[in-house]
Amino acid sequence: MSSTMKPPKGFAPMSCCWSTATMQKRLPFLAWLPDYTWHALKMDFIAGISVGLTVIPQALAYAEVAGLPPQYGLYSAFMGCFVYFFLGTSRDVTLGPTAIMSLLVSFYTFHEPAYAVLLAFLSGCIQLGMGFLRLGFLLDFISCPVIKGFTSAAAIIIGFGQIKNLLGLQHISRQFFLQVYYTFHNIGETRVGDAVLGLVCMVLLLVLKLMRDHVPPVHPEMPTGVRLSHGLVWTATTASQNNYRIDANQELLAIGLTNILGSLFSSYPVTGSFGRTAVNAQSGVCSPAGGLMTGALVLLSLDYLTSLFYYIPKSALAAVIIMAVVPLFDTKIVGTLWRVKRLDLLPLCVTFLLCFWEVQYGILAGTLVSMLILLHSVARPKIQVSEGPMLVLQPASGLHFPAIETLREALLSRALETSPPRSAALDCTHICNIDYTVVLGLGELLEDFHKRGATLALIGLQVPVLRVLLSADLKGVLYFCTLEEAEKYLKQEPGTQPYNGSEDSVPEHKIALLKA
Amino acid sequence: MSSTMKPPKGFAPMSCCWSTATMQKRLPFLAWLPDYTWHALKMDFIAGISVGLTVIPQALAYAEVAGLPPQYGLYSAFMGCFVYFFLGTSRDVTLGPTAIMSLLVSFYTFHEPAYAVLLAFLSGCIQLGMGFLRLGFLLDFISCPVIKGFTSAAAIIIGFGQIKNLLGLQHISRQFFLQVYYTFHNIGETRVGDAVLGLVCMVLLLVLKLMRDHVPPVHPEMPTGVRLSHGLVWTATTASQNNYRIDANQELLAIGLTNILGSLFSSYPVTGSFGRTAVNAQSGVCSPAGGLMTGALVLLSLDYLTSLFYYIPKSALAAVIIMAVVPLFDTKIVGTLWRVKRLDLLPLCVTFLLCFWEVQYGILAGTLVSMLILLHSVARPKIQVSEGPMLVLQPASGLHFPAIETLREALLSRALETSPPRSAALDCTHICNIDYTVVLGLGELLEDFHKRGATLALIGLQVPVLRVLLSADLKGVLYFCTLEEAEKYLKQEPGTQPYNGSEDSVPEHKIALLKA
Repeated sequence: MSSTMKPPKGFAPMSCCWSTATMQKRLPFLAWLPDYTWHALKMDFIAGISVGLTVIPQALAYAEVAGLPPQYGLYSAFMGCFVYFFLGTSRDVTLGPTAIMSLLVSFYTFHEPAYAVLLAFLSGCIQLGMGFLRLGFLLDFISCPVIKGFTSAAAIIIGFGQIKNLLGLQHISRQFFLQVYYTFHNIGETRVGDAVLGLVCMVLLLVLKLMRDHVPPVHPEMPTGVRLSHGLVWTATTASQNNYRIDANQELLAIGLTNILGSLFSSYPVTGSFGRTAVNAQSGVCSPAGGLMTGALVLLSLDYLTSLFYYIPKSALAAVIIMAVVPLFDTKIVGTLWRVKRLDLLPLCVTFLLCFWEVQYGILAGTLVSMLILLHSVARPKIQVSEGPMLVLQPASGLHFPAIETLREALLSRALETSPPRSAALDCTHICNIDYTVVLGLGELLEDFHKRGATLALIGLQVPVLRVLLSADLKGVLYFCTLEEAEKYLKQEPGTQPYNGSEDSVPEHKIALLKA
Repeated sequence: MSSTMKPPKGFAPMSCCWSTATMQKRLPFLAWLPDYTWHALKMDFIAGISVGLTVIPQALAYAEVAGLPPQYGLYSAFMGCFVYFFLGTSRDVTLGPTAIMSLLVSFYTFHEPAYAVLLAFLSGCIQLGMGFLRLGFLLDFISCPVIKGFTSAAAIIIGFGQIKNLLGLQHISRQFFLQVYYTFHNIGETRVGDAVLGLVCMVLLLVLKLMRDHVPPVHPEMPTGVRLSHGLVWTATTASQNNYRIDANQELLAIGLTNILGSLFSSYPVTGSFGRTAVNAQSGVCSPAGGLMTGALVLLSLDYLTSLFYYIPKSALAAVIIMAVVPLFDTKIVGTLWRVKRLDLLPLCVTFLLCFWEVQYGILAGTLVSMLILLHSVARPKIQVSEGPMLVLQPASGLHFPAIETLREALLSRALETSPPRSAALDCTHICNIDYTVVLGLGELLEDFHKRGATLALIGLQVPVLRVLLSADLKGVLYFCTLEEAEKYLKQEPGTQPYNGSEDSVPEHKIALLKA
């Protein structure tokens, strides 16, 4: 049995007669809630507390990165928990303020929270719209080297931006290069108290991190007390990246709705957090219900702790931020790319370097470079040339319109610009589809071969390609299932016929062969 | 013997030690001039006169399309002939004013020739620069549907723009839609003399065209007189398109230099002419030397005829232009695309429709749509699924980074989201190269399969893909030459070993097999 998989169809228009499957896809909690157990509730409770204890200090710190008062971090930290409970596709992911999003937001705050809240509303609308229009596929066009270059640059920008807070320096510009200059210029004004507190915090976080690395993940069999203390060790030290891949459109809906609803509670833009997602997973979370606990914790802290925020030392927050972003800087990626795929260093470096100018330009330029590399490989496919009894050219992958000129040059230079002109075979084994420009190009090639008294035989045609060629009514198309048949025909051995009439002239078993 | 063809390397830096081959590539006349014969001279002389007699009325008429006085057409018509003699790669092509280029120029003239001459100089510099930087490959990204949509729209815009001259109407806007409105609005003011002259000219041209269609092309054996009269029949009626494909970079150099030098003689931008190229070919031209004759004729007419230009009736020129652009409108293309490749109607229609707003936007938008279609087919490759004794997924063409998510979904939904999870094979026969994002995606897939106790086997790996996979040190890669081996291994039949250590662990003959 053989079938061809098509890409998923567009989003079905809203209607009152959604099927249960569609409902469960759009509102995933309908799927897991009926089977929810007491045991799962206990696990989620512990995970929720662990994440809550992580998110509170992080949210306060990230607000600083975004250029906002600390309480705005907490305003941004609870809505995602509740929305994701209903709309989330993954049990582990947590939505809330993140270091990188805070950096991006910082370019638009101008020290005025209203701009950040407006930004949350507008970006929420855009994300919701993209989710409904199923534009999540656009994310496929951002390649890994671009993401790595971006996160590594962001780690440096965010991390270095906290050095001034760690050392208690005043009046330092937010622009990266000026910041570097003035941080070193004013380093003599370091306040000893700030610096000592910051460094102590960092050492403490480092110790917790080392403890974590020697503690196995939580198992459901562990007693509650052990699980909770595990969670606490995880709490203050997040980073490890889970390579999560989920339904991008559904996530866009969830994030978009979070941002829109959040903006009504003075939230700034939020997104999925790598770090807290890892805490969640390692604490043994069973469902997005864990988020409810986290959200409740954040709301409680907002109720009872806001008056204390004034006393939180900036250098302690700086230590939290620096420890959180250090693992985002991937030290091994350059070596890995050098070993695996050197060309991918180009988008990495372009993204990394331009991000220091403007983060958005970095991502945009890196994506552009990725696309150009992709287009180049499509426009200049490798062509295998075999010089057996017959000249055979085989494009090593698909054949799209920008590539037809290359193929033409290869065929003309090897077959027709020799004297005498030679016949050739074009092996189309790896070509699954052709467009009109390619059809026209093949037609011209056939004509060129015919004019100079040589033959161009097509072999290994897949059925869709054959259909397109036949429908185009090209003159003098000669196609064979195998190279041997083409060679026999050219030697004019009796009994070998090309298939050049219509699809019907190809015997049934040959069509099957072509298909295979 | 098997080898891989690479795309041509970049343009060698200027040096004083160019090889003869490079010299002949850059200055093609060095190749054909030494073998030039008296016979070829005679043929070129006749072809040159034929083209000259075509270009003179056309140049006068096209200047009108560009919004310039008629003599500017002739100023633009001779430099290309001389430059192409030295730099041209094709014996048939003639450079000079064309209908479409005149239309494009008309948007920038503002009835002031100086702008058009400046435009010629600037575009010459850009073309020369593109030629030297070997950017001619950019033209590969303009697909046939875009070209057809553009030329068809241009034919309508240019042709309709002449109706007012044909009928002797005054004060009609140059903007297309206003032009259509006012032409019909003012049709009552038609001047009978103009209209009759214009229609007579059109009928005359139509008769010549019909004569041409019943006259075979020139053969070297025909007597000179016959050839010349053939040329004259061809002269007034050009259009038929020769599907020319030549070294784009060398052509850019030739056109660029023509425009720069031409601008010193008050030329407006020129380009290769489809119509006159056909005249040239049909008149039996042997070398670009024919152009010298054409150029001389144009210069003579400039010397002796300019005072008469004032008396050329606009409606006669309008008839020449209309007859010249009618064949540019391709009536069959929509039917052909409907039959051959419906998706290609999209760039055609986008280009065609937007050209009426702004020609440049039409080409740009059409090219963008072509590229999006191309990217979509790269990002969402067809995946053949075979459900034999083992689940086998085979991407029908290459596998690039935007496609990894689709592949992942296909594998997860068919192999791991079933209960119990099933082992699967990924048939990489059609994949000739993979990038780092794909490597990472495959690594995650292998991990997913491992976690759920299933196996993902890779089969049919081409050697470059194998090399990249091995260099990435992915955990648990299992690859086999054939599906049968993979099936045997999974059934744990003795004696079947996967190749999962390094490239060295693959026996020599297996590498050969992988290669085949």
